[in-house]
Amino acid sequence: MAGKPTIADVAQAAGVSKGLVSFALNDRPGVAPATRRRILDVAQELGFRPSVQGRSLSTRLAYSVGLVIARDADLVAADPFYPPFIAGAESVLVDAGRTLTLSVLGRERDEAAHYRALVADRRVDGVIIGDIRPDDSRLDLLAELELPAVTLGSTGDARFPAVTIDDAAGVVATARHLLDLGHRRIAMVAGPRELVHGARRADALRRVLTEAGVGGPTVVETDFSPLAAARATEALLAAADPPTAIVYGNDVAAAAGISVLREHGLDVPRGISVCGFDDSEIARWTVPALTTVSTDPGRWGAAAARALLDLLAGQPATDQDLGPARLVVRRSTGPVPAGHETQE
Amino acid sequence: MAGKPTIADVAQAAGVSKGLVSFALNDRPGVAPATRRRILDVAQELGFRPSVQGRSLSTRLAYSVGLVIARDADLVAADPFYPPFIAGAESVLVDAGRTLTLSVLGRERDEAAHYRALVADRRVDGVIIGDIRPDDSRLDLLAELELPAVTLGSTGDARFPAVTIDDAAGVVATARHLLDLGHRRIAMVAGPRELVHGARRADALRRVLTEAGVGGPTVVETDFSPLAAARATEALLAAADPPTAIVYGNDVAAAAGISVLREHGLDVPRGISVCGFDDSEIARWTVPALTTVSTDPGRWGAAAARALLDLLAGQPATDQDLGPARLVVRRSTGPVPAGHETQE
Repeated sequence: MAGKPTIADVAQAAGVSKGLVSFALNDRPGVAPATRRRILDVAQELGFRPSVQGRSLSTRLAYSVGLVIARDADLVAADPFYPPFIAGAESVLVDAGRTLTLSVLGRERDEAAHYRALVADRRVDGVIIGDIRPDDSRLDLLAELELPAVTLGSTGDARFPAVTIDDAAGVVATARHLLDLGHRRIAMVAGPRELVHGARRADALRRVLTEAGVGGPTVVETDFSPLAAARATEALLAAADPPTAIVYGNDVAAAAGISVLREHGLDVPRGISVCGFDDSEIARWTVPALTTVSTDPGRWGAAAARALLDLLAGQPATDQDLGPARLVVRRSTGPVPAGHETQE
Repeated sequence: MAGKPTIADVAQAAGVSKGLVSFALNDRPGVAPATRRRILDVAQELGFRPSVQGRSLSTRLAYSVGLVIARDADLVAADPFYPPFIAGAESVLVDAGRTLTLSVLGRERDEAAHYRALVADRRVDGVIIGDIRPDDSRLDLLAELELPAVTLGSTGDARFPAVTIDDAAGVVATARHLLDLGHRRIAMVAGPRELVHGARRADALRRVLTEAGVGGPTVVETDFSPLAAARATEALLAAADPPTAIVYGNDVAAAAGISVLREHGLDVPRGISVCGFDDSEIARWTVPALTTVSTDPGRWGAAAARALLDLLAGQPATDQDLGPARLVVRRSTGPVPAGHETQE
């Protein structure tokens, strides 16, 4: 072999096609592990150095899908939803030879300009859209940009398939669990009202309590951060009629709540019951372990990635429902304390 | 104005250059917020729709930087280091009009092929390299691919600037704190030995204990997961000579440890002292709040992103040291329990 080895030389030596060599060198799916190994070994033996230019000029693909989070970076860092969600999405994307292009914009940035930039630079082939707002302006923009998208939660917009989980069912199960334990004064430390899922959860709790002939709930709106949850807990305890059970918007918020309750000398669950949300890793390791709602962010992330890949492969877009979120009863909930068995 | 509005029409109506219109529409830095707002308003008023093709053909930029994590997705999801690190990096990247291209490969995937794919598809302009191994084979690969890179922790390789934090200093401070409290039987629930920082931390602890004339530490190697930390805690308690203080590899691992210790009837810190690592959000909300080492992952992420952007802008590559990691004393450490004041 004279001169610099070419992709044809590697293909011949490995006994495969040039296309397969290219696939193996570029980590594309569809190459058996043993074959990939052999190709890489041969390439190294021959001293082959693949050209790293040119391909993106000949294809229209970015090989990446986007996730744009319009929240402040601090909040994203503290929210236990994202790590398993992103890990679940990655577990699907890596097998498809794709990466995740992540943007954390902060709330004051211009989201529309950012989506335009993603498309103009061809940084993504499609996007996953979370934190759905009522009449979400992103949908018309994405249609205009012709950017394929999957929404987390339903928008009622037929142009974009939704991957949904019935989180309200988890709230309903939580409310019934607390009512069964004799609780009548139930509070919710919730996320921002302007998010569809925040409003939906508070509504679900209110509905069950009303049906049971119980007042409330007292809902304290927060930005989802544990610090805000701690402050909300202080405020609830200072009220004339403090709750006997508190439902938090996520598990770290619930951990922060437990910390404040313990400082006030309240035992969980003997003095007060606490529920989390998401069933993230930390829910198993708080003391006591958290009763929480499993929204299975990892499964949600994987399903959203799969739906978007299907869409990119030209398959028909259909909504996908992951079913009702499930209540996971651990040790942070118990019978209402003596003296609080009935209201009034 | 006849026909479809052009970028020149927008520029004229807004009283700015065409270049500035393009910058504003594509969320590039360097446009004053008020000007950006005016341009976007004018563009909307005129019904201007920017072409989303063409630009990536005329530039060599991906407008994204890569972070490749060669760990299983589950582990990444449970590790409290990544969310603040990524949020810190994002806070810098967003101002520079860049995104983060994230890949979670799992340990069995071919990392080299993945880096080749990132370059071949022009998905990234540079990468941040973490989890440094001794004689890390990625460095020669990146040099071959001519992909700019910044390493988290020093490699001693002059080709790549390192952003370092002296985590060993945090371990030394932890060890002295525990020795001051009278502890002599100190265990470490550590991360994988093959990572440079894992070995460095265990070595630092061993050095201080040896200097103090104290044996140990007992080091239990784990995969950094809280479940493995819980099992390691069980194993340490079952030993003939259980420790009076345990230093964990991260804060969620420490929370898992506290949960197991409480199940064994051990009060923290009266019965046993516990230290975390990273000073992540959850460290403030465990009961008791964690004594831990602040590695400030958010600041680290921001510094790494800034160093990589400097490199991409053609500025000279210099190592950057964020200084010693700092011990944060909260309530999970206390005096050695009575009866354990001295060894033997």
